[in-house]
Amino acid sequence: MLTIKKLKIQKKWRLPSLKFCLPLIATILLLWAQAALGQTTSNDSGEQLDTINTIWVLLAAFRVFFMNAGFGMLEAGFCRYKNAANILTKNLLVFAIATLAFWIFGFALMMGDSPINNILRLQGFFLDEGGFSNYNNYLIKFGKHIPLKATFLFQLVFAGTAATIVSGAVAERIKLKAFLWFSFFLVALSYPITGHWVWAPNGWLKQLGFVDFAGSTVVHAVGGMAALVGAWLLGPRKYRREEDRKMVSRYKDDGTRVPIRPHNLSMATLGCFILWLGWFGFNGGSLLKADPEQISHILLTTNIAAATGALTAALTTSKLKYFNNKPELSMIINGVLGGLVSITASSAYVELWAAAFIGMVAGRLVVLLVYLFNLWKIDDPVGAISVHLGCGIWGTLAVVLSNQNKLPCDQINAPLCNTNGLALIERSQQLGIQVFGLVAVLLFTFLFSWITWSILKARIGIRVSDEDELKGLDLQLHDVETYHGFRKEEV
Amino acid sequence: MLTIKKLKIQKKWRLPSLKFCLPLIATILLLWAQAALGQTTSNDSGEQLDTINTIWVLLAAFRVFFMNAGFGMLEAGFCRYKNAANILTKNLLVFAIATLAFWIFGFALMMGDSPINNILRLQGFFLDEGGFSNYNNYLIKFGKHIPLKATFLFQLVFAGTAATIVSGAVAERIKLKAFLWFSFFLVALSYPITGHWVWAPNGWLKQLGFVDFAGSTVVHAVGGMAALVGAWLLGPRKYRREEDRKMVSRYKDDGTRVPIRPHNLSMATLGCFILWLGWFGFNGGSLLKADPEQISHILLTTNIAAATGALTAALTTSKLKYFNNKPELSMIINGVLGGLVSITASSAYVELWAAAFIGMVAGRLVVLLVYLFNLWKIDDPVGAISVHLGCGIWGTLAVVLSNQNKLPCDQINAPLCNTNGLALIERSQQLGIQVFGLVAVLLFTFLFSWITWSILKARIGIRVSDEDELKGLDLQLHDVETYHGFRKEEV
Amino acid sequence: MLTIKKLKIQKKWRLPSLKFCLPLIATILLLWAQAALGQTTSNDSGEQLDTINTIWVLLAAFRVFFMNAGFGMLEAGFCRYKNAANILTKNLLVFAIATLAFWIFGFALMMGDSPINNILRLQGFFLDEGGFSNYNNYLIKFGKHIPLKATFLFQLVFAGTAATIVSGAVAERIKLKAFLWFSFFLVALSYPITGHWVWAPNGWLKQLGFVDFAGSTVVHAVGGMAALVGAWLLGPRKYRREEDRKMVSRYKDDGTRVPIRPHNLSMATLGCFILWLGWFGFNGGSLLKADPEQISHILLTTNIAAATGALTAALTTSKLKYFNNKPELSMIINGVLGGLVSITASSAYVELWAAAFIGMVAGRLVVLLVYLFNLWKIDDPVGAISVHLGCGIWGTLAVVLSNQNKLPCDQINAPLCNTNGLALIERSQQLGIQVFGLVAVLLFTFLFSWITWSILKARIGIRVSDEDELKGLDLQLHDVETYHGFRKEEV
Repeated sequence: MLTIKKLKIQKKWRLPSLKFCLPLIATILLLWAQAALGQTTSNDSGEQLDTINTIWVLLAAFRVFFMNAGFGMLEAGFCRYKNAANILTKNLLVFAIATLAFWIFGFALMMGDSPINNILRLQGFFLDEGGFSNYNNYLIKFGKHIPLKATFLFQLVFAGTAATIVSGAVAERIKLKAFLWFSFFLVALSYPITGHWVWAPNGWLKQLGFVDFAGSTVVHAVGGMAALVGAWLLGPRKYRREEDRKMVSRYKDDGTRVPIRPHNLSMATLGCFILWLGWFGFNGGSLLKADPEQISHILLTTNIAAATGALTAALTTSKLKYFNNKPELSMIINGVLGGLVSITASSAYVELWAAAFIGMVAGRLVVLLVYLFNLWKIDDPVGAISVHLGCGIWGTLAVVLSNQNKLPCDQINAPLCNTNGLALIERSQQLGIQVFGLVAVLLFTFLFSWITWSILKARIGIRVSDEDELKGLDLQLHDVETYHGFRKEEV
Repeated sequence: MLTIKKLKIQKKWRLPSLKFCLPLIATILLLWAQAALGQTTSNDSGEQLDTINTIWVLLAAFRVFFMNAGFGMLEAGFCRYKNAANILTKNLLVFAIATLAFWIFGFALMMGDSPINNILRLQGFFLDEGGFSNYNNYLIKFGKHIPLKATFLFQLVFAGTAATIVSGAVAERIKLKAFLWFSFFLVALSYPITGHWVWAPNGWLKQLGFVDFAGSTVVHAVGGMAALVGAWLLGPRKYRREEDRKMVSRYKDDGTRVPIRPHNLSMATLGCFILWLGWFGFNGGSLLKADPEQISHILLTTNIAAATGALTAALTTSKLKYFNNKPELSMIINGVLGGLVSITASSAYVELWAAAFIGMVAGRLVVLLVYLFNLWKIDDPVGAISVHLGCGIWGTLAVVLSNQNKLPCDQINAPLCNTNGLALIERSQQLGIQVFGLVAVLLFTFLFSWITWSILKARIGIRVSDEDELKGLDLQLHDVETYHGFRKEEV
Repeated sequence: MLTIKKLKIQKKWRLPSLKFCLPLIATILLLWAQAALGQTTSNDSGEQLDTINTIWVLLAAFRVFFMNAGFGMLEAGFCRYKNAANILTKNLLVFAIATLAFWIFGFALMMGDSPINNILRLQGFFLDEGGFSNYNNYLIKFGKHIPLKATFLFQLVFAGTAATIVSGAVAERIKLKAFLWFSFFLVALSYPITGHWVWAPNGWLKQLGFVDFAGSTVVHAVGGMAALVGAWLLGPRKYRREEDRKMVSRYKDDGTRVPIRPHNLSMATLGCFILWLGWFGFNGGSLLKADPEQISHILLTTNIAAATGALTAALTTSKLKYFNNKPELSMIINGVLGGLVSITASSAYVELWAAAFIGMVAGRLVVLLVYLFNLWKIDDPVGAISVHLGCGIWGTLAVVLSNQNKLPCDQINAPLCNTNGLALIERSQQLGIQVFGLVAVLLFTFLFSWITWSILKARIGIRVSDEDELKGLDLQLHDVETYHGFRKEEV
């Protein structure tokens, strides 16, 4: 840019006499050198900016990848020991499946050129780099000069997260093969389609002004909805002994709970810490740009919402007879996660106090929802539906609490932006758009999940046999004991 | 800066005749353009430097945040299974508490403008960015241009660490509520006040020349002292059976130990690795600047001290009858941590050989102190006092081993610096200052902890009931079993 | 460089008359200022590039360091509970040993000036920075301006990995002291010598055109070979009861397996996720440069190979009677690792489809090799030899699948490069070189390991007593129980 300015200056020159030639030549040579210098400098700067942004996004992707370990520890820890290896196998394979599904199909459907309007010209399968020019131009327009492969990796770990969320809710009774096929279709088709609506440059919900910064809707509510349909179609887990079931039916009578107890809360807590850490990548990386002020703000809102989520869940369980008025570790873990899920949509736009409020509501909401899903006989061993669907919806609505001076136009539709590049939309109007977008995305995901789970049920079955379930999936289906050498009770 | 230089050149000009106008105009335009270029370049460079420094500090903060997982695994692993969920609950909630306490009060007290001299004008609560101009100017002066929110996050995870240290020493008998209140006051008041003394630009110990690079005193000795007072006021844990206690009294007779055995050394070892990793952020990030040479040096001294700490502890336990002449895993873990704590104060200033020596002493010291605290009937289930207070003191004193050419003036008081920006102080004088600073900080922390624990003891009690302790805090106070389905012995 | 260009321009000037003096002086001053600016700019840019590269390499080193935790969890989890603390002790101490061995000797032998030809002038012990000028110049030549200490840290964690690989294969029966001495010699002598051949600027295999991007040969095959010799000389583990052994002898009859079952698959799976994460540092960092396009490509090939490795291993075990036609978690874990090991040598050079293929072959190979090593009575509790030696060899050969436009000349010998800096070598010729290099490195490592293990066997013994092995190393040799309070069976 500066170079061009200087070239314009050059054009204005008229050589008046020869005696000026020397200084002029010197000057011209200098201008050239400077142009070259300017070129080099601005190229250098550009490239360096690219490098920093790329590193930031890749490191965030690593952190989100590691959330697979977090979900694995959390989900296996929250279930019974007899199914631990089955859950871990699922969680290890689901990211492998997601990698292939998103590489071959998903990313092309989500961000490829002409993904909807011209189905025959679909481009970008197998990450064909020629098929993403719209998306690339869009990223460059907002100063996010990072290689397509880095963007792909970042989007891949998000897609993988959506699939992993399902894993927890259907645990201890799902057929491995059915789960893996469902995950494949979710990541190859359903997640990219709704993700396209919200995050692609020409996605219709994005055009409408729907705001979801890092995926409260796109990742969490979608994963939670797929999980809800799965858990609903599967039905609740079997109890080892009939009296356990009877005691559970007392839920309605006096609120006493006899849950199926988790087998390893140490693992689950480790999983929670890994997920908390992972969310710094999830939200911090979603800017796709290492803007110091903005990423620091995002990380701070994220952390504050997690903290208030944890404390509110602890206080809530301490006050409820249903939890024997005791602070319950598994609910505190879900409080952390609920806070994190709910700040995801707005972490870049809300003030710190609003983040604290969003986390507080989430911490209470998640406890309430776990109670309600138990009441409604939707058996979710790890609370995934409450955390990801429930707090995902809350987080998407909470976008209306944004400081409107922070809503940049690269997140929302340009026509709604003022000259400062900030959103001009009214809160009430924004709320309407958020509700509409949520309904659209969740309805699509509900239908997709229902049809897919139903087809799988008809073709290969989705639930293991009663014998396998009672004896434990590890021994029956994987021929392993997760904890060999330890004496155990039948659970 | 270069722009200013050029503007001075411009002032010297006198226009001698009109025929020079063209080249002059060209030159002037060029100067302008160059000034603009210079401006842009230096702005660009400045911004990029900011970005790199910010990323480095944020990544370090993530790593230190994850030390919460490390401490959680270490502390729960070192205790009995019956109290594991209680410890994990504490470790999950303590960082949530620390987040709020430091956001609302702590950071303002530690780094806010006029935090001591004019109590009525205290500024910076709730991270009000206007209240930190002194601190910001100080950071900028030393080339540490990072957003205040990034600095806050980094300081927050340090404050959280101090609180987490206490958790281990008071484990298996502390009331959850008492611990959380103590943590709140520690992070909101005590830690920031002593931290201000040492790390704030106008802190009086800093002015005096007290050096603590990354917190051997500020974080570890402070946390260790609070832990010591807590463990002392609480008294030792109860044994399950009276004969266990009797066997322990044989300590003095023949040195045979009958400790309360840890329930999960795999978890504890994982915790140790997480903490070792975390220390790369703890020390590496404390420069608040990504200077390649310096951070590489810091990371290397840190790693070497951990290594020699581990090996010395292994050799020491292999040579002591008290440990049955066997290399003891839990002491090796504490040797690693001891080495890390003790290199913290001087990791930027000492040579590699000195780092090796500091770690060696720490590895031996930590074993000795664990023995002594057992002898003195201070019951510290995880060795936190030995590691953090003991090695924190050693590390603070070991600053005198610094290569004095490496002591930069942003760490110590300017009047003590020579023209190269290096410290000029004598080793013996430095030792005096280190001892004095330690005494001041530890005395304050001792008094604060004693008063706070005592008030909590009087108001809500700090120790759980005998029945809760014997039956296990998990079942009694949280209504959970950490390891459901496993058959266990009474411990 | 630009500055020099401008200085040449200056030399061409002849002052024709005094009236040009003013503009000339202005111009000269400007040139000076610009030279200063250029200097500053290019210095700044240079330094920033350094900073980014350094941060990238250091962060990669952290990730690879954390692989120690991954190996610790994996190896301990795959063994019996009675030996867990012993394995964890080994894994904690081995990195401490590696730190000292590589600091004092290894790095000097691997990358120091004149490391082979003039044994008396060996330089660089104790990381004496003067002794690495060749290596430093080589790095700078390829734009890898990072501090020597950062390079050292990165190389150190690789050396540590080679030693840790051995740990798994010799687990549950090796004497701790023998293992630590072997590790010391491996990291101080053997690994650096073969590493020098392949990675040092003047290494003879590098000169020959042998390509191993991130260490399929240098780290994994070397570690795997040392492990093979160790496991072979040690002999298989003892079974608790004679009938277990008899059942195992049925391997040959009907393929039914009665393996020694792992004690904690949750831990092992966590270890697998940590290792998968660590590999992003292992391969991503090996460029020693944060080139956005290249690192993104490397990370993507790495991830795809891990995914196809996992899925192929799952499918393979589901189809084999030997595994009861069931997807076996421990083999899926080894499939992930096999895929990662095999993509290590070529991750920067192969296309995505080739990465998928390399991982697929690895996933099948690792299952086959685990079966074969069992058949051959080489007892490898964790499958380390199959994963690291087997897939390391496959990965080294798979370099011939490289897209030859991606083989840069900083990886291979300059004479083989064309003017674009790309390799010109034929695939068949490359295959020959890869085979030759593998044979050379593995032969050296085999001889070194055989001699070292044999000397250790003769001097201090390498295998624990039968009683210690049967009762468990934890109780017998470390006086600890890893899982105190849990009721266990004899295993």
